[in-house]
Amino acid sequence: MKTVSILGSTGSIGVQTLDVLASQPEIFRAGWLTTNARIDLLEQQVQRFQPFGVAIADENSYHEFKHSTSFKGKILCGVEGVCEAASDRRADVLMSSLVGFSGVLPTFAAIEQGITVALANKETLVSAGAVITNAAKAHNVRLLAVDSEHSAILQCMVGETPDEVEKLIITASGGPFRECSTEMLSTVTPAQALKHPNWAMGNKITIDSATLMNKGFEVVEAYWLFGIGLERIEVVVHPQSIIHSMVQFVDGSVKAQMGLPDMKIPIAYALNFPHRMSLDASLVPRLNLTELPQLTFCAPDVERFPCLRLAYEAIQQSGTAPAILNAANEIAVHAFLQGQLRFTDIPRLIEHCLQQLPHKAEPTLADIVAIDNEARMLAKTYSKAMKS
Amino acid sequence: MKTVSILGSTGSIGVQTLDVLASQPEIFRAGWLTTNARIDLLEQQVQRFQPFGVAIADENSYHEFKHSTSFKGKILCGVEGVCEAASDRRADVLMSSLVGFSGVLPTFAAIEQGITVALANKETLVSAGAVITNAAKAHNVRLLAVDSEHSAILQCMVGETPDEVEKLIITASGGPFRECSTEMLSTVTPAQALKHPNWAMGNKITIDSATLMNKGFEVVEAYWLFGIGLERIEVVVHPQSIIHSMVQFVDGSVKAQMGLPDMKIPIAYALNFPHRMSLDASLVPRLNLTELPQLTFCAPDVERFPCLRLAYEAIQQSGTAPAILNAANEIAVHAFLQGQLRFTDIPRLIEHCLQQLPHKAEPTLADIVAIDNEARMLAKTYSKAMKS
Repeated sequence: MKTVSILGSTGSIGVQTLDVLASQPEIFRAGWLTTNARIDLLEQQVQRFQPFGVAIADENSYHEFKHSTSFKGKILCGVEGVCEAASDRRADVLMSSLVGFSGVLPTFAAIEQGITVALANKETLVSAGAVITNAAKAHNVRLLAVDSEHSAILQCMVGETPDEVEKLIITASGGPFRECSTEMLSTVTPAQALKHPNWAMGNKITIDSATLMNKGFEVVEAYWLFGIGLERIEVVVHPQSIIHSMVQFVDGSVKAQMGLPDMKIPIAYALNFPHRMSLDASLVPRLNLTELPQLTFCAPDVERFPCLRLAYEAIQQSGTAPAILNAANEIAVHAFLQGQLRFTDIPRLIEHCLQQLPHKAEPTLADIVAIDNEARMLAKTYSKAMKS
Repeated sequence: MKTVSILGSTGSIGVQTLDVLASQPEIFRAGWLTTNARIDLLEQQVQRFQPFGVAIADENSYHEFKHSTSFKGKILCGVEGVCEAASDRRADVLMSSLVGFSGVLPTFAAIEQGITVALANKETLVSAGAVITNAAKAHNVRLLAVDSEHSAILQCMVGETPDEVEKLIITASGGPFRECSTEMLSTVTPAQALKHPNWAMGNKITIDSATLMNKGFEVVEAYWLFGIGLERIEVVVHPQSIIHSMVQFVDGSVKAQMGLPDMKIPIAYALNFPHRMSLDASLVPRLNLTELPQLTFCAPDVERFPCLRLAYEAIQQSGTAPAILNAANEIAVHAFLQGQLRFTDIPRLIEHCLQQLPHKAEPTLADIVAIDNEARMLAKTYSKAMKS
């Protein structure tokens, strides 16, 4: 039996993780489940999966849940509760699938306890890449990416020698606005941006996909996970999202991982690494090559989608720059979804914060938490200024 | 230093193998070189690579070479000479790249000496799959396929658990006549058939590609190399020849190996397995995804290309059937190239031989040599009858 705790069990990745667990109840059991405020769904999940306990980040939701539920396990509250849930060493794997910077502290807490981390929260490595990867090394913890792209790279790397990698090729769908002019981009609505052509995901990551910031984050994540220099990480637009990423080796050979867009494959791969679990075709429909559209590739356009350029620049600058990038992006995306910013203002807001805030070369986790706060405040202020 | 002997050093694979050896002279040295009759090229090769010795299968060519050369190494003659060259245990790897059934005996000889075999001659496994793979097991010899397809599968399998493979997907370019009707196929000329859209190869394999017999052979080869049931080996037409083959796993994930069509990648991979050698971009041009044509896939048409069906049927029947398939095909291809048979007569001739000749369930190597002879005689006779 393998015990899996899930940070963000009511989100898109959390729900699909529970689907994978449910498909093989003789192998998996749920450890802790956490949510921010979606206590109705959490109630259903505790009934079905009988976890050790739950943690609810939002205090009002915590009190509401506590009074209404018949759940007999532990019920914890707030960030501290989520960190406590993440740190329970009875878990063999922690699925870290919170949204945004909120994933950093509980993921760090799990690493300190030596728990294997399946990392679906890419903001953790974007904001605190050095701190997190150093902690993982120190505690001998394997970080297994749950992005389809990094899972693809990991699948292409098994059995290979890291020294024999020439470059990583991360594919990008290009998002819903791949063919829009900058003028058109300035008028797109949140509803349009939330319609991803290939993947059904949470709101935050869907907007990040539309701006290509998500791809920028993935470059940063690949940099930390695979220890490959930025100049050897390439982004290629592949609108059909069938090839999830590739690795090119020193002999010119390229390996790719393919499949219909379905996060259950990378989720199950991370939970069972280095083995694969049998996933029934009813749960994970198989790729039928002869029914595929033609597969195409083109270069990304960093003029129309400056977020990708900003991400490359931030990781080149390193230190606190990626944390600023991430914090400003979270505020910008939120403001865009609230109708308070134009789509094309998102990179402008981020660039402003990167330029205005001081950089620190080798930040501690406390430094990162501080700069994250500072960047959020500046981003909120500047966001209001941009609107008026 | 790694010593590599090459059976068929003057053929397409042999020449490219020497290119790979020449690119890293500090790693590789040539053991034995063999040719059938191309002694001019052999002369250049011995000057440049200074092998232990050479073997020349054709007796007249042997005498001619022996009298004209200044080469001081051993010079052997005939099939016996080729087998002696193949058996020299000073070689770390034998590149088995003869054409057709002629590869069987020397490859077997090398296996009996415990020499690792890089197998470019697929007819060896088609004709004598059980005998060869049993001998390899008994002598603890690794057979490393040099086809682009089987190399692709091997590259996708490293680091994976064989039990977790769901199916192998072998890609086929579809050959130059992919879109021709059966009527058009009956009139194609050898010159048209020798123009392969993607690969520059020897004549025999180029015709086999045009009939899809080559793909049938590859199914048989995959069956023996990877121990996967026929029902789990699928052929998909992929006209661009960029994806060289794929492996689908039990979790629905598909891994593919890609690259420009270039045999130096699988040659170098087999010579260095499980490591990859650095091949300069001047020797092996890199895949540029953004300059690729769109990648497409479709099902093969066994009505228009019955050779693929015949190969599946022969391996299902097993025993001596695949040896008959191969022998009849060699005669049919030769007759087609001589203008003595129509393109559409190739599968008819093969089917006739498969129907007429007796089958034996568990043939020895001697049985296979005998049925190969018998099938050739029948094929020649029937070929003349078809023509008249």
